[in-house]
Amino acid sequence: MSKIAIIGLGLIGGSIGLALKQSKTPGLTVVGHDAEPSVNAKAVKRGAVDKAPWRLADVVEGADMVVIATPVLAIRETLEFIGPMVSPDCVVTDTGSTKEAVMSWAGQYLPQEVSFVGGHPMAGKELSGIEHADANLFRNARWVVIPAKNAKDRAVKTVVDMAQLLGARPYFLDAFEHDSYVAAVSHLPILLSAALVSATTKSSSWRELSKLASTGYRDVSRLASGDPVMNLDICLTNRDGIVHWLDAAIKQLYGYRSMVNAAGQDESATEKLAEAFAHSWQEREKWVARFESGTDMEAEVQGEPLPSSGQQMLDMIVGSHLRQRYQHLTKLWEHQDQDPRRRRLRKS
Amino acid sequence: MSKIAIIGLGLIGGSIGLALKQSKTPGLTVVGHDAEPSVNAKAVKRGAVDKAPWRLADVVEGADMVVIATPVLAIRETLEFIGPMVSPDCVVTDTGSTKEAVMSWAGQYLPQEVSFVGGHPMAGKELSGIEHADANLFRNARWVVIPAKNAKDRAVKTVVDMAQLLGARPYFLDAFEHDSYVAAVSHLPILLSAALVSATTKSSSWRELSKLASTGYRDVSRLASGDPVMNLDICLTNRDGIVHWLDAAIKQLYGYRSMVNAAGQDESATEKLAEAFAHSWQEREKWVARFESGTDMEAEVQGEPLPSSGQQMLDMIVGSHLRQRYQHLTKLWEHQDQDPRRRRLRKS
Repeated sequence: MSKIAIIGLGLIGGSIGLALKQSKTPGLTVVGHDAEPSVNAKAVKRGAVDKAPWRLADVVEGADMVVIATPVLAIRETLEFIGPMVSPDCVVTDTGSTKEAVMSWAGQYLPQEVSFVGGHPMAGKELSGIEHADANLFRNARWVVIPAKNAKDRAVKTVVDMAQLLGARPYFLDAFEHDSYVAAVSHLPILLSAALVSATTKSSSWRELSKLASTGYRDVSRLASGDPVMNLDICLTNRDGIVHWLDAAIKQLYGYRSMVNAAGQDESATEKLAEAFAHSWQEREKWVARFESGTDMEAEVQGEPLPSSGQQMLDMIVGSHLRQRYQHLTKLWEHQDQDPRRRRLRKS
Repeated sequence: MSKIAIIGLGLIGGSIGLALKQSKTPGLTVVGHDAEPSVNAKAVKRGAVDKAPWRLADVVEGADMVVIATPVLAIRETLEFIGPMVSPDCVVTDTGSTKEAVMSWAGQYLPQEVSFVGGHPMAGKELSGIEHADANLFRNARWVVIPAKNAKDRAVKTVVDMAQLLGARPYFLDAFEHDSYVAAVSHLPILLSAALVSATTKSSSWRELSKLASTGYRDVSRLASGDPVMNLDICLTNRDGIVHWLDAAIKQLYGYRSMVNAAGQDESATEKLAEAFAHSWQEREKWVARFESGTDMEAEVQGEPLPSSGQQMLDMIVGSHLRQRYQHLTKLWEHQDQDPRRRRLRKS
């Protein structure tokens, strides 16, 4: 018999529960708890947990593993609260979006003999809550694993096993690396998304503008629909990284502003803008090919880079696709450059 | 017998062809042309056009309607080239992303008696080319219709009929309004997307960062995969609108930067950041509910606003959903504020 306790039954906690229950692991009991009373009943009804006792002490008591799946700031109070209750053999893990603060709270509030192994599944949806929980949410996603210094090997293995049971790919990092990386690829996108929504909806013409907003607007604004409490907690615990990447994005947007402003009047600005679009197009195509194929996820349980032969093969495949589209585009540009009307237009 | 000619057989032109052919309209012949020879053969093979003669004159000759579906700058040369060939009864339309320049080129290059009716279907994908053409691309999308001053009523009706045949909802605007609105809801998202990709992929840590990039990064960066030639042409023909909205977005991002930087040290900055996330979350939820239900698209063939009773009903439905989530969030924040540890954390 083993018992896993999940604290926080939103999208992530609920999805972990669903996936664990659906794994039909013999002898496994999944117990859960959410600060919002109505969520507990829903989680039982959806089959995400076997039971959801109201007293947190009953949830944690005798648990072999505790998974804390709340917004980041609530992880602190949860660790402080459960610290005196967990048994020495218990493995404590979390799913918080930032990791430096969490690792330091674990050191502060958990007894020395309890193993803490920080976690962060790189998966999500803009729709929060147990209603949107999905047993397949973590399939093929990376699951960042950050063992505390005093974590026992057995505890690390338990967290890796759980991530794999859920279909995810464990990926070892340290907390500082994790927080710097997600500032760029998770938190900056949230702020760009929110900035798009703020800037447009504040406009006195929003009522008219909004009627032309379509799938492009929908996708770029998607992350603005994320849970505001989660986003606030992220900003409060990853300030420096986020400010750094906001500066990089603002600089980039200023660059586009100058190029757009000069384009059509100044041939070299037009060329630069064309190159900028071609460059971001090419880099995005390369990344998306790797992301969707999962190709660069192999052999990385230890954080190892891809074997170079696999890398070369991928570059060949992605490369030939890109080369084809690139040649096509280059031809179009050459054609445009030979067209005196187009030259005039760009100068007019 | 009627003949429709489509010039430019990429995603948009190809999708129009597929939808027209699949409508099985009796007596309709669809003829197409693309500057790239291999595309013509593919368009015939996919069933997007009945034939694709190599000489543009053969495509246009005897056509009752010509649909120009090229990137914006190529519309100019196309209009100039076909001007002397089209019959006086021919209706010429386009699908260009910006409209002021197109309307002026039409006035300049088409004979006075030929009716030009500008068009812009508000639909797309980041994947360009005939390979990704889709007969259902325009279903429920708005189709902006901008008749030239000299366009005959019959010509306007023909374009409206075609848009409706394709499942789209015609929407009348003038060219200036169109270009200002799409600068905010179509072109700004493209530049935010491209800026995200440029800023992150330029980083010397991109190789590591990219491994943690997941669905959030994928969605916000999606428009960076759009055709670079289309994006360049958009910037060259909608400069002022784009610069205006880039400034608005940069201002907004600076605002976030100050709030994030001060948050945790200054209670009021934390509150402001929380409100900013709650506000953009709320506005995005409202917009997406309207967009997905198509509720605010009714009764707008003449650009009329929604009848107020329908509007009130929508506000009620969207409103109660939002009220629920809002109350939940407010409760969470109140709870956080009562927690002295959390206060300390924010101040530390």
